[in-house]
Amino acid sequence: MKLSNLFHPSSVAVIGASRKKGAVGREVLTNLIQSFDGEIFPVNPKADKIEGLKCYDRISKVPSYVDLAVVAVPAPIVPDVLQECSDAGTKDAIVVSGGFKEVGEEGAKLEEELATIARDNGLNVIGPNAIGVISTSSNLNASFAQEMALPGNISFMSQSGAFCTAVLDWANEVGMGFNHFVSLGNKAVLDEIDLIEEWDRDEGTEVILAYLEGIKRGSKFIERAKEVTKSTPIVVVKAGKTEEGASAAESHTGTITGSDDAYNAAFTQSGVIRAENIEELFDFGSILAHQSPPDTRKVGIITNAGGPGVMATDALDGYGLELAALQQSTLNKLEGVLSSLASRQNPIDLTGKADEKDYREALSYIIEDENVDSVLAMSAPAAIFSYPELTKVLADARQKTDKPIVGALMGGKLEPEAQDNLKNAGVPNYFDPARAVRALSALVKYGDIRRMDRSTPGHLTVQKEKAEEKLEELKETGNRVVGLEGLEVLDHYGIPTTPAKLARTPEEAADLAEDIGSLVVLKVDSSQIVHKSDAGGVKVGVEPADVAWEFQSMIDNLSDTQPGAEINGIRVQEMVEGEEVIVGSKRDPQFGQLIMFGLGGIYVEIMKDVSFRVAPVSTTQAREMVESINGYPILEGVRGKEGVDVDSLVNIVQRVSQFAVDHPEIGELDLNPVIASSKGAWVADVRFRFTQ
Amino acid sequence: MKLSNLFHPSSVAVIGASRKKGAVGREVLTNLIQSFDGEIFPVNPKADKIEGLKCYDRISKVPSYVDLAVVAVPAPIVPDVLQECSDAGTKDAIVVSGGFKEVGEEGAKLEEELATIARDNGLNVIGPNAIGVISTSSNLNASFAQEMALPGNISFMSQSGAFCTAVLDWANEVGMGFNHFVSLGNKAVLDEIDLIEEWDRDEGTEVILAYLEGIKRGSKFIERAKEVTKSTPIVVVKAGKTEEGASAAESHTGTITGSDDAYNAAFTQSGVIRAENIEELFDFGSILAHQSPPDTRKVGIITNAGGPGVMATDALDGYGLELAALQQSTLNKLEGVLSSLASRQNPIDLTGKADEKDYREALSYIIEDENVDSVLAMSAPAAIFSYPELTKVLADARQKTDKPIVGALMGGKLEPEAQDNLKNAGVPNYFDPARAVRALSALVKYGDIRRMDRSTPGHLTVQKEKAEEKLEELKETGNRVVGLEGLEVLDHYGIPTTPAKLARTPEEAADLAEDIGSLVVLKVDSSQIVHKSDAGGVKVGVEPADVAWEFQSMIDNLSDTQPGAEINGIRVQEMVEGEEVIVGSKRDPQFGQLIMFGLGGIYVEIMKDVSFRVAPVSTTQAREMVESINGYPILEGVRGKEGVDVDSLVNIVQRVSQFAVDHPEIGELDLNPVIASSKGAWVADVRFRFTQ
Repeated sequence: MKLSNLFHPSSVAVIGASRKKGAVGREVLTNLIQSFDGEIFPVNPKADKIEGLKCYDRISKVPSYVDLAVVAVPAPIVPDVLQECSDAGTKDAIVVSGGFKEVGEEGAKLEEELATIARDNGLNVIGPNAIGVISTSSNLNASFAQEMALPGNISFMSQSGAFCTAVLDWANEVGMGFNHFVSLGNKAVLDEIDLIEEWDRDEGTEVILAYLEGIKRGSKFIERAKEVTKSTPIVVVKAGKTEEGASAAESHTGTITGSDDAYNAAFTQSGVIRAENIEELFDFGSILAHQSPPDTRKVGIITNAGGPGVMATDALDGYGLELAALQQSTLNKLEGVLSSLASRQNPIDLTGKADEKDYREALSYIIEDENVDSVLAMSAPAAIFSYPELTKVLADARQKTDKPIVGALMGGKLEPEAQDNLKNAGVPNYFDPARAVRALSALVKYGDIRRMDRSTPGHLTVQKEKAEEKLEELKETGNRVVGLEGLEVLDHYGIPTTPAKLARTPEEAADLAEDIGSLVVLKVDSSQIVHKSDAGGVKVGVEPADVAWEFQSMIDNLSDTQPGAEINGIRVQEMVEGEEVIVGSKRDPQFGQLIMFGLGGIYVEIMKDVSFRVAPVSTTQAREMVESINGYPILEGVRGKEGVDVDSLVNIVQRVSQFAVDHPEIGELDLNPVIASSKGAWVADVRFRFTQ
Repeated sequence: MKLSNLFHPSSVAVIGASRKKGAVGREVLTNLIQSFDGEIFPVNPKADKIEGLKCYDRISKVPSYVDLAVVAVPAPIVPDVLQECSDAGTKDAIVVSGGFKEVGEEGAKLEEELATIARDNGLNVIGPNAIGVISTSSNLNASFAQEMALPGNISFMSQSGAFCTAVLDWANEVGMGFNHFVSLGNKAVLDEIDLIEEWDRDEGTEVILAYLEGIKRGSKFIERAKEVTKSTPIVVVKAGKTEEGASAAESHTGTITGSDDAYNAAFTQSGVIRAENIEELFDFGSILAHQSPPDTRKVGIITNAGGPGVMATDALDGYGLELAALQQSTLNKLEGVLSSLASRQNPIDLTGKADEKDYREALSYIIEDENVDSVLAMSAPAAIFSYPELTKVLADARQKTDKPIVGALMGGKLEPEAQDNLKNAGVPNYFDPARAVRALSALVKYGDIRRMDRSTPGHLTVQKEKAEEKLEELKETGNRVVGLEGLEVLDHYGIPTTPAKLARTPEEAADLAEDIGSLVVLKVDSSQIVHKSDAGGVKVGVEPADVAWEFQSMIDNLSDTQPGAEINGIRVQEMVEGEEVIVGSKRDPQFGQLIMFGLGGIYVEIMKDVSFRVAPVSTTQAREMVESINGYPILEGVRGKEGVDVDSLVNIVQRVSQFAVDHPEIGELDLNPVIASSKGAWVADVRFRFTQ
């Protein structure tokens, strides 16, 4: 594999190895000596021996080939050292030295130098400003962390070194193990994308956990993570959800869309599970490391305490899971186990009289039930059984089924034997049944992810050149913001519009309305009037006969309320009836064009009932966008109203996606409103902003 | 205090004391002997001595006065035993015997007998079917729980006995203490209301925690809890949020409103904090037990790790708290502490170079800052300081300020010394900064609760008798569901309506419209057509000149689509323009009339943007209802539109509340739509259902 020398080296050099206790170069060396079975070469021109090992002046002097270099020298000489490594044939390095981008401009320059050398020489570099790498499957602690990790099948990366040390301290105490444990540092060369690809191919890694503060190569991340999550779950906690005060936006889409929406969309599209906090990150990781996703959301609950069983049922609902309806045959079999007081429905309440044999029997029936796809086993402590016994029941059940089992054996800390039973069986256990259900929900979610559509968005036939010509023309006017006059561009992308023709006089307007022959909409054409409705520059539902009069009245009003605004005329447009929706795009610095769909009208900004995906979007994704808004039932048709033509909306979303991707110079785009009816959907107004 | 013999007895009798190991009567006795300093009298006619104590045949034979009886005899003789207790002068009892309501009809009868005896004799009875009562301040373990609780200032009650045992097991391990610890059992006599009142007066109780499955005396609960929460916080976890399949409802309000909405409204109105799960229950309890609510939501964060600081900031946002903007003087003082790499803004990042002295100094400046009202102290483990040192810094800081301090000292389990430092200072600590912030948010919420409006809803002047007359008249028609013809009832309650006069012929309709003189709405009058709009029985915006024709056309259509429906005619109503909202009520079996407010139109059922309060609602509460819906900005006026007259809506909500309270026979009520404009609000349609 590409990074095998990083995670499975046979020899490691510590460049900047130090005799000074507490120095990073000393800590790394000590950690290596304590953990690593392969060859270790301290490199330090000022020392002969450190910790009993012969020291070398430089890496080129090391007599044998070195797989991996850990670099702990002062920042200014790191670039040279990396060049030397490369020259000596060492292509993998971990730079633990600080003093780069994190300290300001000077450091950022050094970091660029470092990255250039790595790129030019094909080096795999973790860091700089990293704590290092731990790989339990290679007995490798190439870090200055204070502890070695326990072995396990979770691989973890963190963009915060401090968080690494906290996690390691905690994990060692609770017995959570890792395969690889990486402090990413400044990600000058290798980043999260390289690691998820490497770990996906890695047999020792069942689940990837990451603490990230940002993703730079957004599109690439989606592309690769989408592949990785087919077979290896990825759970990410992303710091920095709170938005900075939004910069002045020129569109509804721009106003509503924050950078966190882009992250959420990207994670959804790539099948990455986003943990809301640290507790979720590790709860999700633990269950994904040991159990397989269930086929459905149907859960069987077994308990010896009714009330907490009800709490678990509440939690199922909260996390989108369902109580399984047990088969009649299961209920019949349970008759034998249950006391007269027991609940015969799911959740199965064995009552406080149940011992571990009753649990064993009831559990076996529930697991066999075809309507049950995962099991939550709960209990309050009882004198009639011990937790070592009850956990054995759960562990044995796991042997007999692939259906997930989680525990909510309530009370204080379990006895070591009980803990071991659960750990060996891979059954997570929590006091709080809601937390157990949440863990289970991550497994269910990963099942959905495995099955999700990963098709590449198709390319629709459009007249890209014609659109480009028109865009050039619009740019030449010098206006960065384009309004109704931009409708023609959409025509070239096959996006249905209701043409809005420009009238310069009341008579022209009346003639245009006459041609349309039904109610029309009048809209002022002026790049200087941003909020046309608010300014009185829009009039809907005008009879053709009244158009001339309304034209004049609008112009007169606007000359009062918007003095000095340059008005090109008034556009006349057929009035189409239907539900108003909005389709928009906004360019995100990390992920490219972010596409938005939502209910239109005044609801868009207030209700924020919108959905996002990163472009390009596939047909399935476009449909998900339309169907996932809360107001979707309105589009489906409610209270006797006919539903709208959803396919037309899906089509518009896809075409907008393609338009945005083809024209990265579009910084923001609003199609608002798009009028959707049972007969189709038409864009009635457009607004976009060029970034250049 | 009323229940002082229950929680602070000087003598306890165990009726049904048993020699048999494992028997409940034996466990209770053993627990008492091990804990209690007062006199203990076993009562059992078949024994002379148990555990070395002289046994009595019956409680009347006990030579001295007995404060408290624990009853552990078989269910059928419990009523007689209670009568004997009463006759012997013992007015407080805990019935741990099972075999009552929980086993079916027979048991339920016994339980009624028990309750009657208690009521007739003025007995205070906990249970039946309870585990018992623990009171650490009296060294009293009058339960068959396997352990005694640790002392503390939290009092806890649980409707689930099994949950009690789980909590006790866990609490003793993590070191959480309780003042009183009560298993409520079946609540035949004493319930949560009695206990919150008792514990509010109890000096040893700083916070009340409860696990409840239901509240029977709903209005009383609100009335009393509202008083208690002025000085004693109450946190409740309520099992059973998931709704049963809603029964067929006759109104929008009925369709949307579930029993959990009533609980949420009741908790909001009474200042009870609802915990979503067990983790929240005890996290909230711990912080409320030791710290006082801050004045504002402004939080100062101090950390040695930037990334986790960002996570904490995200969490603040998620829990409705705010990052404090530090004063310039604080920033100046911090200059001296901070390394060149440190963040000078809140969250203050001291960087990994900070030792405990830096924390001490920085913390003192932040606490002094007037813009900071609570502090989150975070850290990753670092070689430069130890957690015993850092926790000492936090503990010392707590000595100097009333501002809340919570910790997110990350890593594994703290050293005992560090744990003690935090515990003695009452500083909760969590690995996950989000969890620390959530705990803090409970404290902030309790601050809001202390300050909340507790005024008694005023009584508005209405014509109750006239309304009653009209209601009687409507009832006499035999229709349980009343439509537009009910508008008159609202008039008597001072609720503005747009009159809808009944026309039986096209000509009558045209005349009515002529009188109105502007656009009208036509609505079919038929108790057999439930969804008028869907059936084509509503036509809005009709010109008076078109009314006759539209009348005929509607009748013709309906005779096709609703064959056999009895149609009284068509009502003609002035068409008022404005925002559509809905005001409704639904009778809840526990809490009485539940009032709903929300955005109307098709959005009400799909968006469910509604708010609830239990009637009667005060002016402040009615205003909160209106202001708390997501769509409130629409009512305030958006994009150049004038806002609506919110006071009129508040007034309607209050009058509906009074109407619903005055007429408990109204099971469901919809005012939908209520049309609100800048000039006022008018009810355009009504629908209600009688329960009898």
